[in-house]
Amino acid sequence: MTNKAEWVAVDWGTSNLRAWGVDDAGAVTFARSSAKGMGKLSREEFSGALSELLGDVVPASGNDLDVLICGMAGARQGWLEAPYLEAPADLRGLLQGAVHPEMPEGRLRPAILPGVCQKGQGGDNVMRGEETQLLGLAALQPGFSGVVCMPGTHSKWVQLNGTRIERFATAMTGEMFEVLRTHSVLRHSLQGELNGPGRAAGFEAGVEIGLAHPEKLMGQLFQVRAGSLLSGRQPDWCAGYLSGLLIGTEIGANRDWIGDSEVPLIGSSELCTLYAGALARIGARSRLVDATEAVIAGLTAARSFIA
Amino acid sequence: MTNKAEWVAVDWGTSNLRAWGVDDAGAVTFARSSAKGMGKLSREEFSGALSELLGDVVPASGNDLDVLICGMAGARQGWLEAPYLEAPADLRGLLQGAVHPEMPEGRLRPAILPGVCQKGQGGDNVMRGEETQLLGLAALQPGFSGVVCMPGTHSKWVQLNGTRIERFATAMTGEMFEVLRTHSVLRHSLQGELNGPGRAAGFEAGVEIGLAHPEKLMGQLFQVRAGSLLSGRQPDWCAGYLSGLLIGTEIGANRDWIGDSEVPLIGSSELCTLYAGALARIGARSRLVDATEAVIAGLTAARSFIA
Repeated sequence: MTNKAEWVAVDWGTSNLRAWGVDDAGAVTFARSSAKGMGKLSREEFSGALSELLGDVVPASGNDLDVLICGMAGARQGWLEAPYLEAPADLRGLLQGAVHPEMPEGRLRPAILPGVCQKGQGGDNVMRGEETQLLGLAALQPGFSGVVCMPGTHSKWVQLNGTRIERFATAMTGEMFEVLRTHSVLRHSLQGELNGPGRAAGFEAGVEIGLAHPEKLMGQLFQVRAGSLLSGRQPDWCAGYLSGLLIGTEIGANRDWIGDSEVPLIGSSELCTLYAGALARIGARSRLVDATEAVIAGLTAARSFIA
Repeated sequence: MTNKAEWVAVDWGTSNLRAWGVDDAGAVTFARSSAKGMGKLSREEFSGALSELLGDVVPASGNDLDVLICGMAGARQGWLEAPYLEAPADLRGLLQGAVHPEMPEGRLRPAILPGVCQKGQGGDNVMRGEETQLLGLAALQPGFSGVVCMPGTHSKWVQLNGTRIERFATAMTGEMFEVLRTHSVLRHSLQGELNGPGRAAGFEAGVEIGLAHPEKLMGQLFQVRAGSLLSGRQPDWCAGYLSGLLIGTEIGANRDWIGDSEVPLIGSSELCTLYAGALARIGARSRLVDATEAVIAGLTAARSFIA
């Protein structure tokens, strides 16, 4: 792979830093990544982490190299805070809201895109990184209007109309799975092989209850423990049940968002496949959108709306 | 206080061991406690912990001293497993289901009461300790029929008819508060003074949403974080909001259990007062029942139904 690029697209999340070189035709020339996520860095360490990853990149034109960054690097605890755009928000305004952190030495010219916030009637809410994937979706599928589901640690549900975010919600589904698995009484039922043959059946049982009764989540969670004590449920079944219950509850609670259009699912393909199955159970069509493709398309689109 | 007793009532929970001497008129002659809860003991250490706490007690009659125990000492990981009674269950059968662990030396004669389980259509569920408080309630208020709410780490909702448990549910409300406060992203908004003046307003805001939309819990939780990032919510407000949201969700999800009769609330008075306020918001009457009084009355009643 070459080390040449017209500019570099960067997704700087809490856990990882990922970068793609892009040529003047919009094609990816290289892909690199580092474990130096925002969560592991102090403010002073960001510029060094970027130099380390991209120091040898040769700009295809000119002397400086534009590095367009989305994600948690722009958070208050990140490199340099990029104030949120407030929803309803047109994502064509992302670049205009970018901030420009200083680099001690010259050649890299980083800009960090803002996240999007929501205040008032829809409830306070924030996203950082997802807005760029959403702009990417709008670029990949012009004219799309409907709800977008972005499964993950903090799943997002977004009403998108072209490049405009109308409103959004967050469900702490992935994080809930992790804290309950690791720190709650349910951990006793979730030790051992979690990906065994019983996982699928557990998932089906959990997702069915979550979809039908999202209001019963706190009562149904304890079934994980009781099921292993009374019915000999194994750890793989329990893990599947917990995962299914949480995903079913998330979808069941947001059922009123889902319209007639196909729901784009942006996230890891493994997780999105589970969501697609759960959505199908309630008659909703969905399709998987590759998260990396969406973020690169989003950074490319953001760059094109230069003021 | 005397060290004489006709028998000793013991509540052996996960965190603590509590004991009360009882005379032949049913009055409490002494109260003692130790931090040697079931969670801190290996199987071999239970008899020693009991001797340590009660070794000097003089039996009012005879040579041996009956020690009647309820709670987690009878769990599989406890002293000696006391198999569950299965609901629907008449609590007058508790003593008959008791197990008798051995003591290395003579004078103390312990018996551990069973917990109650539920299988099948109501969902797998278990309780240990609460069943004895419920028998106590039945003794303190003969003929009571209706739903009982037992707020706590794992709150119980129980359909009780006299001494009979018809069905029950568990909500992991207290534990959810703790794991989210300690281990989730919400912890960033919950550091500092949590019991400040903003806590009450946060509780009111949370309980209102939880009662109205228990199905939205996973979406509303993230408001804790977003509220502190966007609206300058302080840690006391955030803690109140989280507590109110969880309690409101628990009650909102179990609304269909609540009939016309006053709901007995058994638990810590601080927590029960919060629940009473939340219940009042939806027009449900409730009253606080002292948890210690209930457990002593329950052990006394269990002892009276000797076969």
